[in-house]
Amino acid sequence: MNEKFKPVDASVVPRFADIATFMRTKRHDISDEIDIALVGVPFDLGVNFRSGARHGPAQVREMSRLIRQVHQTTGLRPYDICNVADIGDTPVNPVDAVASIAMIEEFFHTIHGAGAIPIAVGGDHTVPLPIFRAIAKGAPVGVVQFDAHADTLDELCGTKVNHATTFRRGVEEGLVDPKRTVQIGLRGSRFGDGDYQWGLDQGMRCITIDEYEDLGRAEVIREIDRVTGDGPVYISFDIDGLDPAFAIGTGVPEPGGLSVRDCQVIIRSLRGKHLVGADICEVAPPLDPSGHTAISAANLMWEMLCVIADSIDRRRGA
Amino acid sequence: MNEKFKPVDASVVPRFADIATFMRTKRHDISDEIDIALVGVPFDLGVNFRSGARHGPAQVREMSRLIRQVHQTTGLRPYDICNVADIGDTPVNPVDAVASIAMIEEFFHTIHGAGAIPIAVGGDHTVPLPIFRAIAKGAPVGVVQFDAHADTLDELCGTKVNHATTFRRGVEEGLVDPKRTVQIGLRGSRFGDGDYQWGLDQGMRCITIDEYEDLGRAEVIREIDRVTGDGPVYISFDIDGLDPAFAIGTGVPEPGGLSVRDCQVIIRSLRGKHLVGADICEVAPPLDPSGHTAISAANLMWEMLCVIADSIDRRRGA
Amino acid sequence: MNEKFKPVDASVVPRFADIATFMRTKRHDISDEIDIALVGVPFDLGVNFRSGARHGPAQVREMSRLIRQVHQTTGLRPYDICNVADIGDTPVNPVDAVASIAMIEEFFHTIHGAGAIPIAVGGDHTVPLPIFRAIAKGAPVGVVQFDAHADTLDELCGTKVNHATTFRRGVEEGLVDPKRTVQIGLRGSRFGDGDYQWGLDQGMRCITIDEYEDLGRAEVIREIDRVTGDGPVYISFDIDGLDPAFAIGTGVPEPGGLSVRDCQVIIRSLRGKHLVGADICEVAPPLDPSGHTAISAANLMWEMLCVIADSIDRRRGA
Amino acid sequence: MNEKFKPVDASVVPRFADIATFMRTKRHDISDEIDIALVGVPFDLGVNFRSGARHGPAQVREMSRLIRQVHQTTGLRPYDICNVADIGDTPVNPVDAVASIAMIEEFFHTIHGAGAIPIAVGGDHTVPLPIFRAIAKGAPVGVVQFDAHADTLDELCGTKVNHATTFRRGVEEGLVDPKRTVQIGLRGSRFGDGDYQWGLDQGMRCITIDEYEDLGRAEVIREIDRVTGDGPVYISFDIDGLDPAFAIGTGVPEPGGLSVRDCQVIIRSLRGKHLVGADICEVAPPLDPSGHTAISAANLMWEMLCVIADSIDRRRGA
Amino acid sequence: MNEKFKPVDASVVPRFADIATFMRTKRHDISDEIDIALVGVPFDLGVNFRSGARHGPAQVREMSRLIRQVHQTTGLRPYDICNVADIGDTPVNPVDAVASIAMIEEFFHTIHGAGAIPIAVGGDHTVPLPIFRAIAKGAPVGVVQFDAHADTLDELCGTKVNHATTFRRGVEEGLVDPKRTVQIGLRGSRFGDGDYQWGLDQGMRCITIDEYEDLGRAEVIREIDRVTGDGPVYISFDIDGLDPAFAIGTGVPEPGGLSVRDCQVIIRSLRGKHLVGADICEVAPPLDPSGHTAISAANLMWEMLCVIADSIDRRRGA
Amino acid sequence: MNEKFKPVDASVVPRFADIATFMRTKRHDISDEIDIALVGVPFDLGVNFRSGARHGPAQVREMSRLIRQVHQTTGLRPYDICNVADIGDTPVNPVDAVASIAMIEEFFHTIHGAGAIPIAVGGDHTVPLPIFRAIAKGAPVGVVQFDAHADTLDELCGTKVNHATTFRRGVEEGLVDPKRTVQIGLRGSRFGDGDYQWGLDQGMRCITIDEYEDLGRAEVIREIDRVTGDGPVYISFDIDGLDPAFAIGTGVPEPGGLSVRDCQVIIRSLRGKHLVGADICEVAPPLDPSGHTAISAANLMWEMLCVIADSIDRRRGA
Repeated sequence: MNEKFKPVDASVVPRFADIATFMRTKRHDISDEIDIALVGVPFDLGVNFRSGARHGPAQVREMSRLIRQVHQTTGLRPYDICNVADIGDTPVNPVDAVASIAMIEEFFHTIHGAGAIPIAVGGDHTVPLPIFRAIAKGAPVGVVQFDAHADTLDELCGTKVNHATTFRRGVEEGLVDPKRTVQIGLRGSRFGDGDYQWGLDQGMRCITIDEYEDLGRAEVIREIDRVTGDGPVYISFDIDGLDPAFAIGTGVPEPGGLSVRDCQVIIRSLRGKHLVGADICEVAPPLDPSGHTAISAANLMWEMLCVIADSIDRRRGA
Repeated sequence: MNEKFKPVDASVVPRFADIATFMRTKRHDISDEIDIALVGVPFDLGVNFRSGARHGPAQVREMSRLIRQVHQTTGLRPYDICNVADIGDTPVNPVDAVASIAMIEEFFHTIHGAGAIPIAVGGDHTVPLPIFRAIAKGAPVGVVQFDAHADTLDELCGTKVNHATTFRRGVEEGLVDPKRTVQIGLRGSRFGDGDYQWGLDQGMRCITIDEYEDLGRAEVIREIDRVTGDGPVYISFDIDGLDPAFAIGTGVPEPGGLSVRDCQVIIRSLRGKHLVGADICEVAPPLDPSGHTAISAANLMWEMLCVIADSIDRRRGA
Repeated sequence: MNEKFKPVDASVVPRFADIATFMRTKRHDISDEIDIALVGVPFDLGVNFRSGARHGPAQVREMSRLIRQVHQTTGLRPYDICNVADIGDTPVNPVDAVASIAMIEEFFHTIHGAGAIPIAVGGDHTVPLPIFRAIAKGAPVGVVQFDAHADTLDELCGTKVNHATTFRRGVEEGLVDPKRTVQIGLRGSRFGDGDYQWGLDQGMRCITIDEYEDLGRAEVIREIDRVTGDGPVYISFDIDGLDPAFAIGTGVPEPGGLSVRDCQVIIRSLRGKHLVGADICEVAPPLDPSGHTAISAANLMWEMLCVIADSIDRRRGA
Repeated sequence: MNEKFKPVDASVVPRFADIATFMRTKRHDISDEIDIALVGVPFDLGVNFRSGARHGPAQVREMSRLIRQVHQTTGLRPYDICNVADIGDTPVNPVDAVASIAMIEEFFHTIHGAGAIPIAVGGDHTVPLPIFRAIAKGAPVGVVQFDAHADTLDELCGTKVNHATTFRRGVEEGLVDPKRTVQIGLRGSRFGDGDYQWGLDQGMRCITIDEYEDLGRAEVIREIDRVTGDGPVYISFDIDGLDPAFAIGTGVPEPGGLSVRDCQVIIRSLRGKHLVGADICEVAPPLDPSGHTAISAANLMWEMLCVIADSIDRRRGA
Repeated sequence: MNEKFKPVDASVVPRFADIATFMRTKRHDISDEIDIALVGVPFDLGVNFRSGARHGPAQVREMSRLIRQVHQTTGLRPYDICNVADIGDTPVNPVDAVASIAMIEEFFHTIHGAGAIPIAVGGDHTVPLPIFRAIAKGAPVGVVQFDAHADTLDELCGTKVNHATTFRRGVEEGLVDPKRTVQIGLRGSRFGDGDYQWGLDQGMRCITIDEYEDLGRAEVIREIDRVTGDGPVYISFDIDGLDPAFAIGTGVPEPGGLSVRDCQVIIRSLRGKHLVGADICEVAPPLDPSGHTAISAANLMWEMLCVIADSIDRRRGA
Repeated sequence: MNEKFKPVDASVVPRFADIATFMRTKRHDISDEIDIALVGVPFDLGVNFRSGARHGPAQVREMSRLIRQVHQTTGLRPYDICNVADIGDTPVNPVDAVASIAMIEEFFHTIHGAGAIPIAVGGDHTVPLPIFRAIAKGAPVGVVQFDAHADTLDELCGTKVNHATTFRRGVEEGLVDPKRTVQIGLRGSRFGDGDYQWGLDQGMRCITIDEYEDLGRAEVIREIDRVTGDGPVYISFDIDGLDPAFAIGTGVPEPGGLSVRDCQVIIRSLRGKHLVGADICEVAPPLDPSGHTAISAANLMWEMLCVIADSIDRRRGA
């Protein structure tokens, strides 16, 4: 393990001690030494109901104190195989959504340019769009999207870029390959017929919670594998994909959702994929002072970190 | 859609805006234009442990801002086929249980007289009794009761009308047909042998959580269908039927209960039944400031609304 | 009392019952029958730290259930002398600050055009600007501003209209008369020297909490009277003017502030002034689930209502 | 100190340990060995807004773990001069207000018959009435009432015994001597003119918060001394007499109230009076999970305990 | 039922009334009349992250007001067949871990010496060690351990006795028979390879959550039966064995865990075993003011009580 | 301003963004470039009631995002005159109080050796002792102690070093000059006569809340000035010196205490003193999820920072 990128050791510094960073990794500015960049995106001007996700990075950092360094099931040790750092938060403008989106994109360009794979903590679910713009230009990614909502509307309140249109924009801009994209956990009363339809029309694989239950988790995992194939894959996790029992601290909770357990297992199943980035969005701390939602997020981020580290490691050998 | 009964459109008025009504429907006084009357019953003088359900209607209204207008699975659009309104709360006397029960009954007589189907938000689980008295005189209803407790005791603390005796009184008064009644989710340590026995003796179908698990949800759905048959059916949902993971804000939580998901699917399965009313009770907001319990309730209310609207629509055509 | 505008009577409908409106007044659309329009402005896109005030109107409505109909000290009965109604919330666009400001202004034009005096519940403290634009064009108002912050910066994050620039814009646009304006409760660490200076330069009377304490409340009241004089006066209350002991649920709490008691007495002292409008802003419910902040706000709104009703009544007689 | 009545010693048993009793006194059934009986009255069926005070005794017991054994200012050591015990809660019927009132009265008859002075923890502010009936028959007491509300209405919702009529009933039944009664902290918007008037007409000394502020605490203390004189005095503390900054966990909070500090000093000033009982009511735990309200109550109970113990001790010597 | 050990009857004393004891049993000092001793162990100096479990006994007592007297599934009536009492809390020294462990052990020696079976409520998960020392000397117990963590490290922060080493010490001291011990629910990111390995090496049956899911609950129950055999069995429940959806109030929550339902059924399956003691640890009330975690704990304690009472009863007959 | 020590600028990086450090200063390891070292001490093994202060540094860091860079009253700009850095947390051993105290002392030796003045955030109120040992050996400091409790007991539960003995040990070890020490805000029921007496006997100036009120704040400030004189002065702030209205999140709240406002003004009055260090202790985040207590602490820390920076600046010129 590169000493410079060694996370805080809980046997030396208790988990309640010292400044909170993602997973207790070291805080470094982005550089080409970094393999995986953990980054906050404190942006929530893209929501049309309850905001608060701007504070998501802070609470996920705090709650990720819980995470240790060896994976429970696979034994993966991400810090032994990759240089991982908390590179801070992207710049944002707190009162200007359009400017913020540009600033976020710019920051991810820098990450991408440095050769690092980003794992982003939002912020609302607008966040993946500027990430796609930075990392997928000319190389559209397949997406594994955990979400209660398809986020493929054409517009919301007259704007084209917000947390309900992200994946439509991504496809339209040639950044997301709909045919290698799968949405998992869709549910919740709908605005109209179009909520999922556009994605279906583009060839996305939309797995509602009903279908999820019918297929069973193992079959869904096979389906994800089939759809995403060998190309570059991006993981996007809207925390409202989880049932509110695991994530009440989010803007638009929808009962009847996925369990953390299911999502842990599904993310683990992505081992072997060519993973190029990930995000976890819509953790809104003011709506869950207990931190439960952020604990769920931190644990899912850990799963992402392990499979991404492994992906990097494998491709090195290749 | 009748403009007069068109709910607030979230694309025009954001969900955080304007006065909260049930499901964002319009507030109207009861009239014969209304097909489905959403009504609050802020009564909790029938409880023997933790009160607070008097504030249930307020918090469910607030949290039902989340609900949209098209059903996620069936595509049902209740507001296209029925006139639905929030008709406010029943009168109650805050310090007189007996008077309140009479006032509630009277209010439901008016609803029933106007030809509307009520969906009531309690209030404690005494509430169904005055509803039965108003809508089932001479035409006993079968009941689909979601509940941790059978509520068929003979008396509690010397009183005959309270949240633990509702369904016994309903049967005794000829308003509830025990042979077409099914209780789902019974569990929790018992006061004695009689907790469920009286219902069983009358022919009720009492499905404890143990039996629920043994049968599986699909078989339980078949059993509900078999028991309730073709006659009029009423849905009564004590929120403590849910596991506390989904509904900690209730007077008598009992671990090991139903999930919201299961209840969503079960209520959907009632499509095609002759539905004559519904309630959702025992949401106690002071015990859950996060609003999770009320979010669960609002989503279950949405399921009730859709199947009841469909029931009305079908019977029109008949 | 005009029956049409009679608030809900707590001796008939308990305070926990029925749909929450401001002060339990009736919900009416704006019309020239209304003397005082209680109105929500669910806008919080003007903040640069913690948002959430978009939910302010909802929680203040809920907590204003507590308020009765006769003033405790003066015996004023506002509903006997004025027609008061809750006219709902202004339109806003949840993802577009500029559009929202225009929509809010338009709505207040309508109120003003109908001859009603508005009492607005924000929303963040950007809200007074569109109100000024609607009601003070050509007739600049003196302002009694309760606030921890002067809100007279020139810009914030590159934008000119936000919750830190409101009163500067108001003066620059000729809507606020700085020489008849008094700011009370200023405090909190400062960004720089300019935080209060611009206002002082324009002739505003800026009373920091230090000076407030030195002068004493009675002298401050005399000073407010002196400064505001006989012209039209507007009351603007940023809830963070209060000490966090009374209002933790706000975006930028500053310890060492005003008590609700002091503010009650100060607002009462405005009796006799020519009052043309009022607002209470920055109540952010997700940051105070107990509702204490909103209870403070509802009580201050009650004080505003009483002196404004009296002001209308006096000017009728004049 | 009588070993049998020695409270738990914090230097031996940490304050977080063992079963919570009032002030960590021993739990004993009432007997003539007891000088001061600490007693819970878990009754809240007399309220017309937010309930929850039925849980008051439990939370005050829990929070009174904080209290030690020597008075901070006077050096009084109540357990050295009196036998003090927690005698548990009065019986109540959770669904029958009338029956409960009788049960409570009966229980206080037993306490009174045993020669003990009760300090009661409610429960709502109906509670003093059955206490008066038990201890003041034929010997009307003067009352020092801390309260936001006069509680001298004639009826509420058609009932004569509830938390808004207590002191009127007490006077009418000859149990409370209005001319030796003082109400402190009255405030809050009023239902009508009669809110305080009846008391004034009977000769009660009604000190609104306005007058309290005008007189100053020292003068109020002299006034209390003057009014209550040498006869038997009862202390009744509705926790809503406190400002919500100290007691948000109550049914009807009214901003602009008394501080705990002021009330501590006032209760201390009652030293030397002939004290015959006390209560502290309206602590509603579900409305304040932090326990702050109950901490306030426990500390005020401690003040009551010290002056009552001293009163007993002095009268022994007399 | 022995009147002296009859729990409070909810039909006489409402569940919100009177002093909270475990399951509303009577508070007695330990004596040879007692069959089952419910005991609090307010010790949390053995944790290396979030403390607070010192308050566990208080909150579990409060929340166990919910529990009635007849088992929901088996119909067992523990109070009819055993004398059960709340014997208070063990002594502890709040600032000295080593001294506390000795004090706890001493207290359990007394319980054991009196012939009672203890059911302990922690306190952190160091607590079982002094219990083993008191009850298993010379007669090593098999353990059914519900836990996210194996707690078989060799040391933590240089100390040998803490909440991460309990079961290793127990085995090393000859108190726990590893070959008759099963751990259920292991999961969570790991410190290193050794987290579970030592236990495996000793012959413990370590069932990770992955294996739990693979086997299914019924098979796990068979496995527990097989492993524990006919010898003495002790049940140790670290509340973090539960998923955080049921127990957020604990020091080290790990998503993806057991449900209360599963644990209820598993504990019930221990009927017929030779049960010699039980504990439930790591409930940290400050981390869950809602009480949900303590409600889970109280219900699991009820399951333990029923099977232990039955075990005692069977062995009497034997 | 030294760029290396320039805090984050809120006009560039919004206050909700990026990793939380004390006052948004840069994180640096201790070095002789640093004038003022902001340091966390996550130690709470010295308490005998409610713990949780180990998380104090984390929550104060988070809430100190609120603080800007210019003092509101004095116009002091600490970052222009001193190099200020967040140097992280001291090492501690989470399960060994004695070892931790030594580790803390060692860390402060390093700070002191580097020539920096420490401002520490506890942790419990044991923390000042190891600081005294590091910075006051041979040069005893006068102390300005804000506290509800004197903390001058001889021992607690058999230990000599804990949060109730700190200042006695400090005096005994020749580190604290009792004749230049003043305690402000003492109150709360007492364990016995000795609670304050030892300090008085040594010549400490003990100002109870009663005397504080009698003297008035201005006179108390003069008294502090007189007592502390010209020698080195250390500020120690136990957050329970504040009234619980401002600081409910602490282990032993005592109603009737100081306001934040009073403490702000008193700390400001220390301008001109020779200040050698400061701490703020006993913020226990799990007991106040709203963050209000930590907001109070962050603001008081800001006051300390400004007067200490000024003190350093003056002494440079001298």
